[in-house]
Amino acid sequence: MYEPDCIFCKIAAGEIPCGKIYEDDDILAFMDINPISDGHILVIPKTHSARVHESNPDVLAKLAAKLPLLASAVIKGLGCSGYNILCNNGAAAGQEVDHVHFHIIPRNPADGVFTRWPKYQYPKGRSEELLEKIKSQLKA
Amino acid sequence: MYEPDCIFCKIAAGEIPCGKIYEDDDILAFMDINPISDGHILVIPKTHSARVHESNPDVLAKLAAKLPLLASAVIKGLGCSGYNILCNNGAAAGQEVDHVHFHIIPRNPADGVFTRWPKYQYPKGRSEELLEKIKSQLKA
Ligand SMILES: [Zn+2]
Ligand SMILES: [Zn+2]
Repeated sequence: MYEPDCIFCKIAAGEIPCGKIYEDDDILAFMDINPISDGHILVIPKTHSARVHESNPDVLAKLAAKLPLLASAVIKGLGCSGYNILCNNGAAAGQEVDHVHFHIIPRNPADGVFTRWPKYQYPKGRSEELLEKIKSQLKA
Repeated sequence: MYEPDCIFCKIAAGEIPCGKIYEDDDILAFMDINPISDGHILVIPKTHSARVHESNPDVLAKLAAKLPLLASAVIKGLGCSGYNILCNNGAAAGQEVDHVHFHIIPRNPADGVFTRWPKYQYPKGRSEELLEKIKSQLKA
């Protein structure tokens, strides 16, 4: 629940101050202190888990149920055109604090944030091969 | 519920084929045909809504409750190091299909995906100013 070395657990417990946007029994939303766009906020479950795949489904459900409210407030409050909701899991994915957090990143046309989206096409058969690898884990 | 011009509604209804990973009454997970990394999947609610802030909180909760299962299958099935969960809302945020979808993007060290993360610091007072703009919309 509370991980003594985790900065987001300390923020959730009120031991470290934050620019609080919203709080309820389950989640906390606050300003990111190193934004990638103006009004970038973080939404965290109050209970500690490092990664989404290690998280309690009910905890994630409660967090996600508040995303419409929070995203609406970001859109209306800032007048931005759109937003990304991003949750990085693992250092390779850019996760810097090992407590699950969802970024809400306000976006506007041609703002230069996340312009790199290097999509490609699979060679023949590759998608099916990867699909089977993933699906096989759901049958366990 | 079903939007006649929406490609993801057609996929959810089984009218357009997909590389299906998982399906239940509420959600569908399938292979992205233009991946940004191998094993890139999409998770969608079966009911149509264009953006998270326009979505039914219960629908998002049901989707998020399945993210641990699906992310576990991606991690175990592909042996990747981490993953991003990303939901783009609005054209300025890179949304290309106007039906809410969460990308699960497998990641490995130094894979060159999403390396640009242009974070900065707010000038004095700016964070508080933005916080009030967002919070003011929660009091309505
Ligand atoms: Zn924590
Ligand atoms: Zn649709």
